[in-house]
Amino acid sequence: MPEELKLHISKRFNRDLATLVSQLLQMGGTVELQLKSALDGLLNGEVGLVQQAKELEEKVDQFDLILGEACAQMLVLRQPAASDLRMTLAINKCVSDLERMGDEAHKIARVALPLMEDGQSLTGFVEVRHIGQHVMQMLHDVLHAFSRQDISLALHVKSRDEQVDIEYRSAMRTLMTFMMEEPQTISRIMNVIWVLRSLERIGDHACNIAEQIVYMVQGRDIRHASKEEVAKLLNQLNLSEP
Amino acid sequence: MPEELKLHISKRFNRDLATLVSQLLQMGGTVELQLKSALDGLLNGEVGLVQQAKELEEKVDQFDLILGEACAQMLVLRQPAASDLRMTLAINKCVSDLERMGDEAHKIARVALPLMEDGQSLTGFVEVRHIGQHVMQMLHDVLHAFSRQDISLALHVKSRDEQVDIEYRSAMRTLMTFMMEEPQTISRIMNVIWVLRSLERIGDHACNIAEQIVYMVQGRDIRHASKEEVAKLLNQLNLSEP
Repeated sequence: MPEELKLHISKRFNRDLATLVSQLLQMGGTVELQLKSALDGLLNGEVGLVQQAKELEEKVDQFDLILGEACAQMLVLRQPAASDLRMTLAINKCVSDLERMGDEAHKIARVALPLMEDGQSLTGFVEVRHIGQHVMQMLHDVLHAFSRQDISLALHVKSRDEQVDIEYRSAMRTLMTFMMEEPQTISRIMNVIWVLRSLERIGDHACNIAEQIVYMVQGRDIRHASKEEVAKLLNQLNLSEP
Repeated sequence: MPEELKLHISKRFNRDLATLVSQLLQMGGTVELQLKSALDGLLNGEVGLVQQAKELEEKVDQFDLILGEACAQMLVLRQPAASDLRMTLAINKCVSDLERMGDEAHKIARVALPLMEDGQSLTGFVEVRHIGQHVMQMLHDVLHAFSRQDISLALHVKSRDEQVDIEYRSAMRTLMTFMMEEPQTISRIMNVIWVLRSLERIGDHACNIAEQIVYMVQGRDIRHASKEEVAKLLNQLNLSEP
């Protein structure tokens, strides 16, 4: 094959891959907006925002379908190898995680309405705001890490998930104590618990994306790596960076 | 390329694909066993079974790593097209769903121990048994559908998930009423609720696998199809079968 043609194919391939990445980041931005709308709507009692979060679900699903098809097309038409293949496969997995994050944001929006109708009893909202901010930052950072192929940032996101889990368990204990003391609040508190559970899951999905970034860049599968192995990897990266 | 060589490659390809499918079904069988152990252990108070469910987690994670790598190898070395590509991609997605089902089975095993220590108060166990059986049947059927490439069975699994959701919501109402009446049981009932939540999610993952089977066989992406569209597809299949 003449060099020129090779170059042409490679350029076209890179353009297609760049389009995929750009669409994935757009999908990520949509999920970010959906989550932010659901949380802000809930915490500030703004029905319009909650409604927006619900409506964005359809857009996220559209991205899911389009990107699923685009990844398959990429594999069959371009037959990528090595790091390009890993990137295509990683995008394919990240799409699923983003779609599930969108589902969780939609669930938050769904319970937000009955919670808002229950009026101004704000038990659990401090925890929702706190964990919500934490998880939104994780989502933001992991998308940034993806766009920059930054494994160091990706690993930081992964290590932060543990903190979210600790906060989640602590919030759960507080809410359970509250339910025991005031049983008439149980159905309301259960809705707050579902919101926290969704946030905790969104954190898990951010972690999954972080793992895919490491796979994409280094070809290393750290999905079932221990905390120590991840810390060691992060340490090596920090040492090798200027 | 001589026909003989083509045939040879095709045979080798089919053998590799058959190995992938066989490993996926083994992984599925392991998750089935893990879920059964967790549920039987919990419901019959058998600590040994619960322990087994916990230990199987590692085996499921191993399958996850091996199959993830095998799918990537398949794509890079065999560069499958059309239905073979769809099958490879579908296997890749199904592996993730099975791994997450394993996670949920592990979560059930984790809360089983404190639940068993709480003694013989069996509130919610009828619901756990009932929904558990339903979900185990879904998992069993969807693996069977995968091995036979049976989209009709896959669509039946998908349509049954709605029933699980109805049963889950009904169980949730019962348990919330119970907590309100007897607040001292809250922390115990919350553990039962986590078990039900895990079962409901396992049902969702069985659905995801069912959707992948349809994609694999028909190239049709029904992940975000409406209930009516799925019913129509099922109807067409029934009409076209003898």
